[in-house]
Amino acid sequence: MKNKGLFITFEGGEGSGKTTQIEMLAKMFIGQGKDVLLTREPGGSPGAEEIRKLLVTGDPERWNRMEEIFLFLVARSNHLSQVILPAIQQGKVVICDRFHDSTIAYQGFGYGNNQAIQDQISQLYTMIAGNFKPDLTILLDIPVDVGLKRSKRPENKEQRFESKKLAFHENLRQGYLTLAKAEPNRFLVVNANQPKEAVFQGIVNGMAERQFFLKVQKAGVEEESLWIPPSYSR
Amino acid sequence: MKNKGLFITFEGGEGSGKTTQIEMLAKMFIGQGKDVLLTREPGGSPGAEEIRKLLVTGDPERWNRMEEIFLFLVARSNHLSQVILPAIQQGKVVICDRFHDSTIAYQGFGYGNNQAIQDQISQLYTMIAGNFKPDLTILLDIPVDVGLKRSKRPENKEQRFESKKLAFHENLRQGYLTLAKAEPNRFLVVNANQPKEAVFQGIVNGMAERQFFLKVQKAGVEEESLWIPPSYSR
Repeated sequence: MKNKGLFITFEGGEGSGKTTQIEMLAKMFIGQGKDVLLTREPGGSPGAEEIRKLLVTGDPERWNRMEEIFLFLVARSNHLSQVILPAIQQGKVVICDRFHDSTIAYQGFGYGNNQAIQDQISQLYTMIAGNFKPDLTILLDIPVDVGLKRSKRPENKEQRFESKKLAFHENLRQGYLTLAKAEPNRFLVVNANQPKEAVFQGIVNGMAERQFFLKVQKAGVEEESLWIPPSYSR
Repeated sequence: MKNKGLFITFEGGEGSGKTTQIEMLAKMFIGQGKDVLLTREPGGSPGAEEIRKLLVTGDPERWNRMEEIFLFLVARSNHLSQVILPAIQQGKVVICDRFHDSTIAYQGFGYGNNQAIQDQISQLYTMIAGNFKPDLTILLDIPVDVGLKRSKRPENKEQRFESKKLAFHENLRQGYLTLAKAEPNRFLVVNANQPKEAVFQGIVNGMAERQFFLKVQKAGVEEESLWIPPSYSR
């Protein structure tokens, strides 16, 4: 029987450099012989990608806040049951660009710290996922003005969230940091206002500190091969 | 100030004849000078229609039960806030082909009477609609075999639900009757296994019995004109 895989999520505001860091981390794991699955939210499964289209295109006012939350949760449920959970079961290291913390940060903090909405989002998440959580969540933290400048590159066509006010992004950043503080074992906060190599080094150092690489080594390995019978060991 | 409008919903299994009866009732109200809005679920607003497409087409297994429920609720929220509530505010008589009882009946009873799911659906509804309910819900009740035979007409292209098993439809019928029993003031149950004229007569009789036509008369009328000053009346 194989050891099950791992689920790592990346979080952060606009322009925090998630895509770059995800690619670097995936390459490192692949170099270590790991079976890596890269995915993203909203989207990641055929049903969820259709919902992503509804969310990131069109008039920003077409869905109210609760509708947006429900749509994110449907997409997440579909992505989780059809892609993420089967991959973890197969022993893969799954790296996901955004997951549930994004919904809490954007919807529960972005429009102002709203405890009632945060509680409703948590209730909804429990309905679709029970007590499932990522093994590690890497939060790329960056000052709002720096991040927004980075994300305004012309190739970025999904500008719906970028067009919202600066205050929203500041709330978002503080929301993420609040979530990280509440779950210090799951969250690894990395300063993303550095050259990409330094950011990546911050990620690797943080993972080493919490001995996360031992878990990565075990992911997907045949269980028997991890155990050396005492009579054969020195 | 105008009196506000009314919200009437039609419920029933496949082939119960909702479309026909809705048209007959709308014609009657229009003949009485009422401003009528016909609408339907899932759908009824641009955003909700897009979600309807996700729900009624494609592989029946593409969404799990909870995902289906979330999608119905998003569509309902959009329909409610963008179409139904504004029309009621304008004094219209809104007639809707299916509403929230459909979700409880199909998702909470169709796969077997599941109290936990029914409770979750109610929780979700409260998140999007608070304590808003239809003024009247007309349930067209028909034996499952008769209804399914009627709904298999070749022009009906949305056969997703029809293809499910007979037991599902029997559960559905019993679910609707359970809901009607729990809210006898809101529900009007009409035997739909009759010629359409007799069914319509059943609807009109039931509305008359509960003095619902008085409410219809008042809907959308200027409030002052309902009150005749004593000095001018005989």
